[in-house]
Amino acid sequence: MAQGGRPFPPPAASPNISFAMARADVLTPQGVDFPRWYQDVVAKAELADNGPVRGTMVIRPYGYAIWERLQAEIDARIKAAGAQNAYFPLFIPESYFRREAEHVEGFSPELAVVTHGGGKKLEEPAVVRPTSETIIDSFLAKWAQSYRDLPLLINQWSNVVRWELRPRLFLRTTEFLWQEGHTAHATEAEAHEYALRILREVYEDTMVNVMAIPVLVGRKTERERFAGATTTWSAEAMMRDGKALQMGTSHELGQNFAKVFGISFSDESGQQAYAWQTSWGASTRLMGALVMAHGDDAGLRLPPHLAPVQVVVLAVRTEDGAGEAAEKLVLELRAAGLRAQLDNRTQLSFGRRVVDWELKGVPVRVELGPRDLAGGTAVVCRRDDGTKSPVPLAGVVAKAKELTGAVQESLLQQARHRLAQGTVQASTVADAIEAAQSGFAALPGPALRGGEGEDELNASGVSVRVLQRPDGSLPSPEESPDGLVAIVARAY
Amino acid sequence: MAQGGRPFPPPAASPNISFAMARADVLTPQGVDFPRWYQDVVAKAELADNGPVRGTMVIRPYGYAIWERLQAEIDARIKAAGAQNAYFPLFIPESYFRREAEHVEGFSPELAVVTHGGGKKLEEPAVVRPTSETIIDSFLAKWAQSYRDLPLLINQWSNVVRWELRPRLFLRTTEFLWQEGHTAHATEAEAHEYALRILREVYEDTMVNVMAIPVLVGRKTERERFAGATTTWSAEAMMRDGKALQMGTSHELGQNFAKVFGISFSDESGQQAYAWQTSWGASTRLMGALVMAHGDDAGLRLPPHLAPVQVVVLAVRTEDGAGEAAEKLVLELRAAGLRAQLDNRTQLSFGRRVVDWELKGVPVRVELGPRDLAGGTAVVCRRDDGTKSPVPLAGVVAKAKELTGAVQESLLQQARHRLAQGTVQASTVADAIEAAQSGFAALPGPALRGGEGEDELNASGVSVRVLQRPDGSLPSPEESPDGLVAIVARAY
Repeated sequence: MAQGGRPFPPPAASPNISFAMARADVLTPQGVDFPRWYQDVVAKAELADNGPVRGTMVIRPYGYAIWERLQAEIDARIKAAGAQNAYFPLFIPESYFRREAEHVEGFSPELAVVTHGGGKKLEEPAVVRPTSETIIDSFLAKWAQSYRDLPLLINQWSNVVRWELRPRLFLRTTEFLWQEGHTAHATEAEAHEYALRILREVYEDTMVNVMAIPVLVGRKTERERFAGATTTWSAEAMMRDGKALQMGTSHELGQNFAKVFGISFSDESGQQAYAWQTSWGASTRLMGALVMAHGDDAGLRLPPHLAPVQVVVLAVRTEDGAGEAAEKLVLELRAAGLRAQLDNRTQLSFGRRVVDWELKGVPVRVELGPRDLAGGTAVVCRRDDGTKSPVPLAGVVAKAKELTGAVQESLLQQARHRLAQGTVQASTVADAIEAAQSGFAALPGPALRGGEGEDELNASGVSVRVLQRPDGSLPSPEESPDGLVAIVARAY
Repeated sequence: MAQGGRPFPPPAASPNISFAMARADVLTPQGVDFPRWYQDVVAKAELADNGPVRGTMVIRPYGYAIWERLQAEIDARIKAAGAQNAYFPLFIPESYFRREAEHVEGFSPELAVVTHGGGKKLEEPAVVRPTSETIIDSFLAKWAQSYRDLPLLINQWSNVVRWELRPRLFLRTTEFLWQEGHTAHATEAEAHEYALRILREVYEDTMVNVMAIPVLVGRKTERERFAGATTTWSAEAMMRDGKALQMGTSHELGQNFAKVFGISFSDESGQQAYAWQTSWGASTRLMGALVMAHGDDAGLRLPPHLAPVQVVVLAVRTEDGAGEAAEKLVLELRAAGLRAQLDNRTQLSFGRRVVDWELKGVPVRVELGPRDLAGGTAVVCRRDDGTKSPVPLAGVVAKAKELTGAVQESLLQQARHRLAQGTVQASTVADAIEAAQSGFAALPGPALRGGEGEDELNASGVSVRVLQRPDGSLPSPEESPDGLVAIVARAY
């Protein structure tokens, strides 16, 4: 979606603070305290704020503009995979939740319950959806009659609520925004294929090619899988502190929910059969991943595909025509299809303004003052590596366009390098635990000793993120962990 | 947004039902029972379904695809008016609600209350937002410090909950989707101007130019205004049964909420002042308006701007190359930027398929069979007036493109005509009540007798929808009803 006319104001800043002071002033360095750095960036880049009810979140306009773009990218891929958007109720009768035993057990501790509506106590309490398998499946059951109605491929963009005891903005919030897909297929093989199609063509593709975050895709172990699923597939990424973040999951549900909610159909031979299902989701958690996978001590570094402002033109001073030249440049950048914004707030110090735009992660900054204008050049700066170069004014638009591509690519390469460097081949659980203090470990399946090794890992605050084949490819749902490699890490 | 690859299946239909039978079979005629007709259309065109918790709603893929387009149109206009999207929590502490006396009184009877979260009773119950003035204003108070921070122009797309005793799909549901705008300005004049800008440039423009529904804009009477507002502006439309539907409202809130939530700022002279506010919203209710403003006894008639399928190519039979020709035509229509879909379900009768697409309101239908193909033509049918004409195959794309424009315009003209014909100049309350049994009445303000007349109207199930100047223009917030005209109607 195109950005509207209103600019994003950088954080409030006091004038006349020197460059160096301003920068040191702004953020806790990552190396000093990563969680504090994260909190600082989210607040000072004006991404989000805490809501008054514990664990709830306000997504501020700058953060929401990033989310809108991410959402549009995911939505386009979901539609390309053939699913249709719909909307199902927020409130689910409590009884629906009790029908699938594993599911209710998994979600019970996190439920928010409405007991009163319209001034009266409700006859049956309503659960605020933590996920919508139960209510959506109750409708798929009505819509699936014959094999001709299948597959049913439904997606929903919505808010969900899971009561959080230790909330953190974007990463774990009581309410979050997400998309949840729910599908019903005639055969297990089709459901399997579709779950993997979503994993790769929607999630992995968006993460790598839009968010510039490399991901490891694979199968979850039994204990890590979704409550009610037969197989859970996941995409996991490495944050800059070496911890893993689960970016999106795609579940095969077998016939578990279909049997409970009666999703059956008459097959080609006229026999009644239960459908095979998938569900899959990705959430505002991805905003946390963007911050932690790319951000540095100066703040956010946004991939140009998602940046609400791709190029900021900073009028160093506005005298001698420099203000007008900066304005003109912004219009030219916009005409070239870039999201460009003017900063002519010369009442603030130059240094402070640079710090502001670095904090907000704007990929390309163009600095233009009367002296530059007299020399017929502007200074073009890349946020990803801090390099600056003088560029003839007539070449600024082409340069900015080139750099938005280059920064997108470079952020991905940097993250790939970090993932490769941060992943250790471990041969024992003890080695893996040690490696996981600062990164990922790849542990051969036999070291898990049929679950015993996983107990040990978990006891040290480490978990198996995914199981992959030794060559990095996806295993089948049934393949024994003994022939696979476990990617082990501490996780958000 | 572009439609994905998956087609919208028409409602399940039994094969081999004759044309006439099929049509009579489908819907209760409007003249027989309008509410029943509405219910039939919403169900059979697969727009929506009732959820299991009383008053909740499932928006089905076909309905949601219309809503997505409407949402995108409104969103683009909101951004053009300078507002930014953000997201605020679903849960609002109950205490926030009690701060503005008129507001809590207005909403208390409709609140849903969460008393338990994470398995425990909450210390303070949380209200599920029925509207977000209270929570958003508590954040605007943090963000507005100086006059330089104003105006703050925030919009949110979200779900809200208002417990409904007599729910009807889209029109009155316990949970609905909407956008709600919340702004803070330095002066009353600015707030007034912005409230009207939204009313006209966002709401009126979308309703008229996208939904093809003419609206009457004006001021609400005191008793009809929003709980907590100083002035409420509204856009009202006439449905095909003569009743009014409130399409969108824009409120001036004065300093009521600003004082309660402390939205104050230092003005240019350094004095502290309270902000002046607006709020405004439009919801999935608009889907009900689309159905009832344009629909006829054969079903929906969708404005091409919003139709998920603008052109359906119906392969009458698929022999002798007709199937391939129909497929090719769909690709050509798509290449021309039209949302086109193939129907080659020749296992169903021709008549049944025609009835299906009429029900779904697809603006243009192209019928192509072996005989047409042999003659080098296809039959092109308009949904708005039922006319059919043979068109040379090479001209079908141009014709379809022309007709999507023509149908859009014609639906608006038909609705304008209906509104003009259905509005009576009344001089007494009794006349107005009579006229309101089948349409609108324009009643001179003095007939309201300072509220007494409004009591009488209300006692007969009729209400003042808006006040306008005699020439149809907007009055000021203060203008006495005595110099104005009251548009009077029964209302949804």
